Amino acid sequence: MTLPEVENLLLKLERGVLEVTLNRPESRNAMSLAMVADLNAVFDAMADERAIRVVILRGAGGHFCAGADLKQMMAGGMKPPVPGEIDPIVGFSRSFGSLLRKVTKLPAVVIAICEGAVLGGGFGFACVSDIAFAHVDAKFGLPETTRGLPPAQIAPFVVERIGLTQARKLCLTGAQFRGLEAQRLGIVHEAFSSEEELQTKLAETLKQILNCAPNANAVTKEIILNVAHQDMEFVLDDAAQKFAACVRGTEAPEGITAFMQKRAPKWAGGN
Amino acid sequence: MTLPEVENLLLKLERGVLEVTLNRPESRNAMSLAMVADLNAVFDAMADERAIRVVILRGAGGHFCAGADLKQMMAGGMKPPVPGEIDPIVGFSRSFGSLLRKVTKLPAVVIAICEGAVLGGGFGFACVSDIAFAHVDAKFGLPETTRGLPPAQIAPFVVERIGLTQARKLCLTGAQFRGLEAQRLGIVHEAFSSEEELQTKLAETLKQILNCAPNANAVTKEIILNVAHQDMEFVLDDAAQKFAACVRGTEAPEGITAFMQKRAPKWAGGN
Amino acid sequence: MTLPEVENLLLKLERGVLEVTLNRPESRNAMSLAMVADLNAVFDAMADERAIRVVILRGAGGHFCAGADLKQMMAGGMKPPVPGEIDPIVGFSRSFGSLLRKVTKLPAVVIAICEGAVLGGGFGFACVSDIAFAHVDAKFGLPETTRGLPPAQIAPFVVERIGLTQARKLCLTGAQFRGLEAQRLGIVHEAFSSEEELQTKLAETLKQILNCAPNANAVTKEIILNVAHQDMEFVLDDAAQKFAACVRGTEAPEGITAFMQKRAPKWAGGN
Repeated sequence: MTLPEVENLLLKLERGVLEVTLNRPESRNAMSLAMVADLNAVFDAMADERAIRVVILRGAGGHFCAGADLKQMMAGGMKPPVPGEIDPIVGFSRSFGSLLRKVTKLPAVVIAICEGAVLGGGFGFACVSDIAFAHVDAKFGLPETTRGLPPAQIAPFVVERIGLTQARKLCLTGAQFRGLEAQRLGIVHEAFSSEEELQTKLAETLKQILNCAPNANAVTKEIILNVAHQDMEFVLDDAAQKFAACVRGTEAPEGITAFMQKRAPKWAGGN
Repeated sequence: MTLPEVENLLLKLERGVLEVTLNRPESRNAMSLAMVADLNAVFDAMADERAIRVVILRGAGGHFCAGADLKQMMAGGMKPPVPGEIDPIVGFSRSFGSLLRKVTKLPAVVIAICEGAVLGGGFGFACVSDIAFAHVDAKFGLPETTRGLPPAQIAPFVVERIGLTQARKLCLTGAQFRGLEAQRLGIVHEAFSSEEELQTKLAETLKQILNCAPNANAVTKEIILNVAHQDMEFVLDDAAQKFAACVRGTEAPEGITAFMQKRAPKWAGGN
Repeated sequence: MTLPEVENLLLKLERGVLEVTLNRPESRNAMSLAMVADLNAVFDAMADERAIRVVILRGAGGHFCAGADLKQMMAGGMKPPVPGEIDPIVGFSRSFGSLLRKVTKLPAVVIAICEGAVLGGGFGFACVSDIAFAHVDAKFGLPETTRGLPPAQIAPFVVERIGLTQARKLCLTGAQFRGLEAQRLGIVHEAFSSEEELQTKLAETLKQILNCAPNANAVTKEIILNVAHQDMEFVLDDAAQKFAACVRGTEAPEGITAFMQKRAPKWAGGN
């Protein structure tokens, strides 16, 4: 596959692992409209792709993402909406939620590395990853309501991530907290305190993921993302069809044979 | 706004913070029909009110609430239902669930202070607060099934609060437990071991909440309470509309200006 | 009631407690079609039964259950599906999800004792129990995708058990972990490190459950299993009807009288 040309991201694809680095360090990688467009372009390109097994999402310059670029929003969108047209503020807001849903639904396994500022929209990105790591000194928070705004496109993903009980406290107090608390709340899965420790844990996790079959993992993501939003009977009916398709596909024969021969399986694209 | 006259509650409103104290200490604040009516009157009066920023719910005499007043229920409602009329037992039960939903949906931030008995219906109140504190010696439990009754209007809120996995064990064993376990299970957010410690933590939390914009917080509550019960696309569409209304409202200009000027924002009613 | 004749399970019914022991120790109790049929027969027989208060689910030979019997599946079902008939692979897969739903919905309280291998389908059984205990050395994991297959009928129950955030990591890495981590993730409620410790904890839990009224507990299970899948207003309306039926039933008068007389209640079948 060909990755699109982008200006606000650094991309590096190696052996099925795509590193996506938010690259606006001068504003702690605050989410501009151009950066949202770049992310959409990259993720759209890989929507049906199985060769990219893992996406690692990180920020340049020691920060993950400080949230929406409020200056840009205020500068560009404060004109009153034109009757009959979509209010540009509504579109600006909604587009960020669409981007987060797109990340959640990627067939690849998404890993977020949370360092420095993980605020507002940055917090949202952490919440749609499959696996998240946080530096113990990372600073998490939803400061929106202290600025007179609801975290409209982010709060729903926080509820999905950690449940209503903890989400309501975070959203209604604007409280900031560090990486270990983020792990305790279930926003991230593991904490680290040095780049070396991160790389060790990341290598171990990548090894586990690459040992899983690419298509089986993508199908599994589809199944589990259905659970909260569909009737359980439908989820199980649909999952049985997907299971049969996998049994009759190319991965299962290799996977089951390898298991019976007590050897590691070999997947398309290598592992 | 004018607070209603009530007999079973103590009310104190000061600088946007309303303290509601359940005041039937002789029965450990067991929930009588009259107390339910008083709570409905108070919460109905503030349903569209933004001047009340926080509700602190507490019990008089060292207990939060020991549950439903079973003596009253047995004395008053055991006649067989009249054909064509609502069974009074059904009405008695359902009215408590309606009250709990009303508390959940208040535009103000609801803080519960759990001490002494936090049983049955009292447990239910803890589960619909936005933020809950528990004394380490508080006694939590759902003893209903040991009395031959399901915790019918309470168990659904326990599931919403801590998930099915922990809720089913608590509901089916009638087990009692203390404040630290309540925190571990996610029923409350923080534990305290003295009134002094509580007041310190409460002051800090109030300061955080009052720093958030009143309307933005109320809108945020609406958004996050939708997540479990609506399709995610609908939740995000609706949230984008709410976001735009806030951007074009009175709070956002003050909040964003204050942020850019690196000063604290000033909200209607003070903070 | 009469328990069915089964070949792959050991059954022992004593004072309302039914021990169901998966008995294929030579294959670490891997789930064969015959064992699935046996479990269906036993659980169907007790679907409307109140005399069985508790089901204890355990595995013979130190293992709980190592998952599906892949050899049997590959040997029996790999013929292409006949047009117009249900694909046997779809049926094989779906039947396991149906069995897990049946366990969840049993009127009795289901206790799972997780030891040794708790993999794949065995993991699924742990996820549908009301109360689960794990030996600290038990080995949990979802290895399906390392074999080219999605954990199709299991992953939805893992999401229901511990939420999407932790489930997605477990499903997409095939990671294995021990009993204390299973407790931390909320898959099981308690860990133990010896048979003696287990028996002490189990006796305490059984005493609590048997002190709860049989029908009230069964009704409570129905109510809480509805929460995730129904509108909250419907859940509460339905629960109020169930509450009234219990008030007018045989258990509530005994339970409330015992409470007022400060004595233990006495339930049908003994406690």
